[in-house]
Amino acid sequence: MSELRWDPLKNNWTIMTKGRGRRPQDFLQKREQVKMAACPFCNGNETKTPPEIYAYRPDGSRANQPGWQVRVIPNKFPALGIEGELDNRAEGLYDRMNGIGAHEVIIEHPDHDKSMADLTTDELAEVLKAYRARMLDLHRDGRFRYIFVFKNFGIEAAANVPHSHSQLIAVPLVPPLIATELESCREHFARKERCLICDLIRQERETKTRVVRDDGNFISYAPYASKFPFELMIAPLQHSHDFTLCTDQQLLLLADTLGDSLRRLRSILRDPPYSFILHNAPPLHLRRGRPDYWGSLPVDYHWHIEIAPKLTNVAGFEWGSGFQMNPTPPEEAAEFLRQADPTVRYQD
Amino acid sequence: MSELRWDPLKNNWTIMTKGRGRRPQDFLQKREQVKMAACPFCNGNETKTPPEIYAYRPDGSRANQPGWQVRVIPNKFPALGIEGELDNRAEGLYDRMNGIGAHEVIIEHPDHDKSMADLTTDELAEVLKAYRARMLDLHRDGRFRYIFVFKNFGIEAAANVPHSHSQLIAVPLVPPLIATELESCREHFARKERCLICDLIRQERETKTRVVRDDGNFISYAPYASKFPFELMIAPLQHSHDFTLCTDQQLLLLADTLGDSLRRLRSILRDPPYSFILHNAPPLHLRRGRPDYWGSLPVDYHWHIEIAPKLTNVAGFEWGSGFQMNPTPPEEAAEFLRQADPTVRYQD
Repeated sequence: MSELRWDPLKNNWTIMTKGRGRRPQDFLQKREQVKMAACPFCNGNETKTPPEIYAYRPDGSRANQPGWQVRVIPNKFPALGIEGELDNRAEGLYDRMNGIGAHEVIIEHPDHDKSMADLTTDELAEVLKAYRARMLDLHRDGRFRYIFVFKNFGIEAAANVPHSHSQLIAVPLVPPLIATELESCREHFARKERCLICDLIRQERETKTRVVRDDGNFISYAPYASKFPFELMIAPLQHSHDFTLCTDQQLLLLADTLGDSLRRLRSILRDPPYSFILHNAPPLHLRRGRPDYWGSLPVDYHWHIEIAPKLTNVAGFEWGSGFQMNPTPPEEAAEFLRQADPTVRYQD
Repeated sequence: MSELRWDPLKNNWTIMTKGRGRRPQDFLQKREQVKMAACPFCNGNETKTPPEIYAYRPDGSRANQPGWQVRVIPNKFPALGIEGELDNRAEGLYDRMNGIGAHEVIIEHPDHDKSMADLTTDELAEVLKAYRARMLDLHRDGRFRYIFVFKNFGIEAAANVPHSHSQLIAVPLVPPLIATELESCREHFARKERCLICDLIRQERETKTRVVRDDGNFISYAPYASKFPFELMIAPLQHSHDFTLCTDQQLLLLADTLGDSLRRLRSILRDPPYSFILHNAPPLHLRRGRPDYWGSLPVDYHWHIEIAPKLTNVAGFEWGSGFQMNPTPPEEAAEFLRQADPTVRYQD
């Protein structure tokens, strides 16, 4: 029997379908290696990109020269533009806003052939520090309501530049799905004086069937109403609403869990295309005294990372209904991922 | 400058991106013809499918024999199962419901090589009559809250059987996106005593820039906050909440506009993959005296069809934020589609 599942955080239902391919081997895909003549993200090609905004240079080398380990640059083809003032107005029954924002690229490593799953925990922690640094900087710009950090791996849209990178987009309003999560958390707290995500984590630790890894600092689990096969959520066990408050030590611990999750997915799904997203609370100063504006009151939210392998095809039904169909129950996904050996590249 | 646009029906924002490919020729894709040894949907292969539920047989031929023009069968691999009683319960903080529903396939024409855009207006009207007949029948089953009719064309998920077909899924709750639209319409009416979609159509007819076709009965236009390039909305000009109330004559007029829209898309985008969805009000008897249950009060809704060509790739940002990025402003899409010649298969 298929099953519908409701997630109190997303406030949404997922249809867990029955009798269709659901195991890792049902999803194996061929990944094409895109070869580029001269990759602009490679060490030594710094002049082929816009000037860097941030870099981690352990050797103390100069900006826009080789020697960096992580490098952040503006996106050459930004979805939103950094120049101008916000212009927010009605157009009859509709509303429009001009597309003020920032769009940056975080180059995760100088080596063209290393994916995020190949990075050491120390190297991955430096990528997370770059996220933190750029978010803190952009939070000072009063035009932005939200800073969005995400990564596409092996997905057509991202394959233009195969060199491992993440992206950051600053947007002039809180994204709809984040707003829903903030609202769920806020309502739950108003009623129960407890954080919803803390409650979910507590239930997951008791149930255990959906937990992939729990090292006492971070938990990685397959969400109850997962929209996608082998979807994962990574969250700190200790309540925190804002990723940018993480210490270096916490980022190192996060890098450990994140790297482990990516390697487990790679091991059983053979380098699956995936997206991951950092879900964070908007900064407090954006509340600006307006009760309807989300700001980072510590009780409002619990930051986390969501990883979604792209194994199924979203077509008419999902697009038009808002229901997602998922053939792999999260309990099965978690079992496969627990048994995966993260040290083996492709498991049989 | 990019632009953010808000749609009062979807209650959602779309980012209209600038400086990226946006014209029809930027989206042309290679479509692979899938050849099948023996297509179960073809005339003469009726025994290869489950027994038919409905058929239009102009020659009066017997069920499950050749001679049909439209044929409806149960999906062999249903996403939801027809047997059993609803079981709706909590699981700690979560909720689950067993997957009771129906999943049917509407075979639109006996000829394997005809796509929906190839059908005559009369033939297409018979497909719409099959939708209506199946919806009316399933509305009598008290376990279902909503009947969802959609079509995937040229999309991986649907390409298992290339023979032209639509699908119908009955679900035990109102799909999230439909619920949002119903809520938008209901709130608008409560405040203004007018149908929101009637208001939107009135504004579109005045603005004109987004209208593709308006024959006095049905309007086809590119929505203001289109999530996808060349997205189209088709709606009756005269207010009606429920598609199943359409007369044969109205379905003939709808077939005329729907066929025209599909042929215009084909002409300039060369058989693009697309999905279309029928958005309808849930039937009145499902309200069951509960004020929080959507039922088809005539003021609550205005049925319509949404067509979304699948030209862009939904990746991390869209999936994780709920923002869609669309490079083609609907005013430009409508201009291309107005100029398209629907009688020419592939326009240059």
